[in-house]
Amino acid sequence: MFLALFSAAISSVFFAVAPPAHAGKVLVFPHDGSHWVNMRVLVEELHSRGHSVTVVRAADSWYVSETSPHYEAVKVNFAAGGNEEFYRLFVSEVIKIKRSNRSAWARFALDMELKDKFFELHRKVCEMIVHMFEDKDLMQSLREAKYDAVLTDPVNGGGVFLAHYLGLPIVFNARWTVHGEAHFAIAPSPLSYVPLPPSELSDRMTFFERVRNMIFYTVRMQMYKQVVGPHYSVLSKLYFGPDVDYFSLFQAADLWLMRVDFVFEFPRPTMPNVIYMGGFQCKPSKPLPQHLEEFVQSSGEHGVIVMSLGTLIGELPHDLADEIAAAFAKLPQKVIWRYKGVRPATLGNNTLMLDWLPQNDLLGHPNVKLFISHGGTNGIYEAIYHGVPIVGIPFVFDQADNLSRLRAKGVARALDISDLTREIFLATTQEVLNKPSYRMNMQRLSKLHRDQPMKPLERAVFWIEFVMRHKGAAHLKAQSYKMPWYIYHSVDVILFLLTIAAFLLFVFSLFVRCCFRLCFRRKVKSD
Amino acid sequence: MFLALFSAAISSVFFAVAPPAHAGKVLVFPHDGSHWVNMRVLVEELHSRGHSVTVVRAADSWYVSETSPHYEAVKVNFAAGGNEEFYRLFVSEVIKIKRSNRSAWARFALDMELKDKFFELHRKVCEMIVHMFEDKDLMQSLREAKYDAVLTDPVNGGGVFLAHYLGLPIVFNARWTVHGEAHFAIAPSPLSYVPLPPSELSDRMTFFERVRNMIFYTVRMQMYKQVVGPHYSVLSKLYFGPDVDYFSLFQAADLWLMRVDFVFEFPRPTMPNVIYMGGFQCKPSKPLPQHLEEFVQSSGEHGVIVMSLGTLIGELPHDLADEIAAAFAKLPQKVIWRYKGVRPATLGNNTLMLDWLPQNDLLGHPNVKLFISHGGTNGIYEAIYHGVPIVGIPFVFDQADNLSRLRAKGVARALDISDLTREIFLATTQEVLNKPSYRMNMQRLSKLHRDQPMKPLERAVFWIEFVMRHKGAAHLKAQSYKMPWYIYHSVDVILFLLTIAAFLLFVFSLFVRCCFRLCFRRKVKSD
Repeated sequence: MFLALFSAAISSVFFAVAPPAHAGKVLVFPHDGSHWVNMRVLVEELHSRGHSVTVVRAADSWYVSETSPHYEAVKVNFAAGGNEEFYRLFVSEVIKIKRSNRSAWARFALDMELKDKFFELHRKVCEMIVHMFEDKDLMQSLREAKYDAVLTDPVNGGGVFLAHYLGLPIVFNARWTVHGEAHFAIAPSPLSYVPLPPSELSDRMTFFERVRNMIFYTVRMQMYKQVVGPHYSVLSKLYFGPDVDYFSLFQAADLWLMRVDFVFEFPRPTMPNVIYMGGFQCKPSKPLPQHLEEFVQSSGEHGVIVMSLGTLIGELPHDLADEIAAAFAKLPQKVIWRYKGVRPATLGNNTLMLDWLPQNDLLGHPNVKLFISHGGTNGIYEAIYHGVPIVGIPFVFDQADNLSRLRAKGVARALDISDLTREIFLATTQEVLNKPSYRMNMQRLSKLHRDQPMKPLERAVFWIEFVMRHKGAAHLKAQSYKMPWYIYHSVDVILFLLTIAAFLLFVFSLFVRCCFRLCFRRKVKSD
Repeated sequence: MFLALFSAAISSVFFAVAPPAHAGKVLVFPHDGSHWVNMRVLVEELHSRGHSVTVVRAADSWYVSETSPHYEAVKVNFAAGGNEEFYRLFVSEVIKIKRSNRSAWARFALDMELKDKFFELHRKVCEMIVHMFEDKDLMQSLREAKYDAVLTDPVNGGGVFLAHYLGLPIVFNARWTVHGEAHFAIAPSPLSYVPLPPSELSDRMTFFERVRNMIFYTVRMQMYKQVVGPHYSVLSKLYFGPDVDYFSLFQAADLWLMRVDFVFEFPRPTMPNVIYMGGFQCKPSKPLPQHLEEFVQSSGEHGVIVMSLGTLIGELPHDLADEIAAAFAKLPQKVIWRYKGVRPATLGNNTLMLDWLPQNDLLGHPNVKLFISHGGTNGIYEAIYHGVPIVGIPFVFDQADNLSRLRAKGVARALDISDLTREIFLATTQEVLNKPSYRMNMQRLSKLHRDQPMKPLERAVFWIEFVMRHKGAAHLKAQSYKMPWYIYHSVDVILFLLTIAAFLLFVFSLFVRCCFRLCFRRKVKSD
């Protein structure tokens, strides 16, 4: 039996290794900011497998370095407007407004400001693309480089336009497109059990939640079309002809590498060219630096809490930081808190504040019992990978929605910063620490997440290489994206069949009427 | 670079092997006949990986042996009616009727006979299940055996009922369910680009083809409900309560191992718990027996044609066999023909007739240029695996539809037996032999089919083991199957929103009317 198992293992091994190492050329059009953190994982892996990677870089990019051992940068002489500072200020504004319970109008104004910023972002991307397309030398050199594929994050449409212009296959590193959550652009999404992010709904909705989901969907789709559509629409008509719909350019991508899997995402319809790579950034933890290891060990049986609110939120308003620090001080656990602000007055001896912390290595440490997070997917997947339950403090974007998914699985609680007090923070933290179900459920998720025939990153890279080997993935692309909505939904066919049915009914009723009249006349005559 | 590639390969290897070898217990409820040929591949692989497999066997099963080194048989003392002989006779009747161009009525009567036979088959399965459920000792022993999962072919519902009765997770080895093509039972299937098998339509349909697809779908679904539904409905109500819908019992399966992939199937929506294992039965060819190798080598540059029409069709009417043999005689190729009937008078020297042939080993031989097949999926996948183009002679069931998929990909031609003459046969065979596109396209399909991160059989077994390890695959199962159709399609939500819209419109019109009247009165007064 052992031999049989071994031979089966060996044969699977050889198959896994079998695909030939094809040293390809990948052109990357990234999205700046935190999205680049994800993209870089793919870029580095592609480079380590012998492929040459070129990254398009705006003149003022904050995250994408000009030089790197892993890629060559194509420096575009155009300032796309690095948005880091805006978002940082924006988030702190959101926190301030939420904490001060300002009027609904203030919150609405903030939403509008965010919308405008997105609008500007997409405008800038389009301008950058025009700038590139009009730079004949640049385009000539890109054409001559003979790339095998374009890898891009479809949260902006730059890479899509570039790929179509160069006639190259497209691979998406996706969670969002310019139209919202990526699945909604490619796969059927019955609104009865597929909640539209970031609605914070689950796949088990009551009637009124389903009504909310439907309204939310209608409003968001219109919003995306109004806000984002016009820019890309102009661009697609300008360079690809008056009949080219920019949405179908996106949908024609060869491969959608989705940064989720069904440990995190609710199960929903998908497509053959969607590959799930959720958790592709996760890796085993490394040993901690000595001072941290000593601190962690000093926690004893109570263990350690790790808190980090992502790169955008280095500090909090004083009152909020005070509340959180005070709550921590009451816990028997030790706390490691990534915080760049002024040291809160209420900070206890059990809490270590750090400018930066080795998050993955901490989460993988057996003494770490709880992760306090803003709810970004990177951190969430690291917590899932290491089986650490979460208390979430969502601030903005998809964070609350991400946490709602974990809540539905019984592995997290989320806090609202509007009314966050030390009592609420303490009670919630204690609940997740002391109720075994949170940790058990997270450990179960972790097991499911790790139990895959291939590592998510290996799978992602296999499929990028597949697209390069075969110049696309045409056999995985459904015909749907070529259809206008009324054909896709068979509206024309249904109307045609209803018309015929109505005609038949009409003829039949004429016939019955004639018969009736005939009988009636005869009866009258016979009378 | 080589080191990097090697280390990546090694890491992927360790991940592929990583899942622990969990020696599980699988209960198999197979479908007799050619479906067992497929199921046996999984059974043997599970056994070779150290799992113990038990197969439920009807007293009169033709294909499932009572004893096997790979499984233990649970002998149910019930004759389910082995249908082999019926189907053999039925197919020869179909051929006779099609060849003699008998009336449409004769063809319709034959269709009705087939429908009745399916009806009887499902009735028998249900009776067998009742027989098992009422055999308390048998059920007790099955319960005590503590199986980890039920593996079944959902073309009949026996395994589904058995699994629900025993409270076990279900894995399907599926292409058809009792409701038709398996995807239609689990995944959204927009009829605008998803043709319903066996309609012989492709994913690129004209308006009238889409109309046909819609009508075909409506009629077939009704037919399945009328023909098959009642039996299973009675059974589900009897054993699982009056509110249990038998369809949702099927839909609740944990995993759908589909015997297709997107080299053969048109790309279409799918679900997270659908795993594609098309071609799982394929394997490299072994050397031929000496006499065959000599015959194949004697073909020289012209190469060899292999013809086999599956297990059901060992012989053909004399006239048809004569036409085919005469056409073969005119070809420069050598022919190996699996044929059990009387030697046709027109047989040429270039044709070798055999009772049985090592199909996979022949198709894998570099000298084999063409496969003449009835269009069963086993043979088709072997041809895809080895890259050999096909001339199809479909007779019955899904064969014509299977071939239509290959036709759409430019790797096959199909012949109609109704008007098959030596001239047509010769011309078609010559076309596929001499036009390079058929072979090139098939070689491309073969490359795509083989370029997967895991062998289809390994993938199938990984996921069966996954279900055993985790007692199901709940996190991959969408909520859809728990919903009645009107909730699934949001009909209630849409009606609710339309009602509100109508009400608002009504209130608004009342308001406008009031205003109008008010203005009008004043005007009258002022006049």
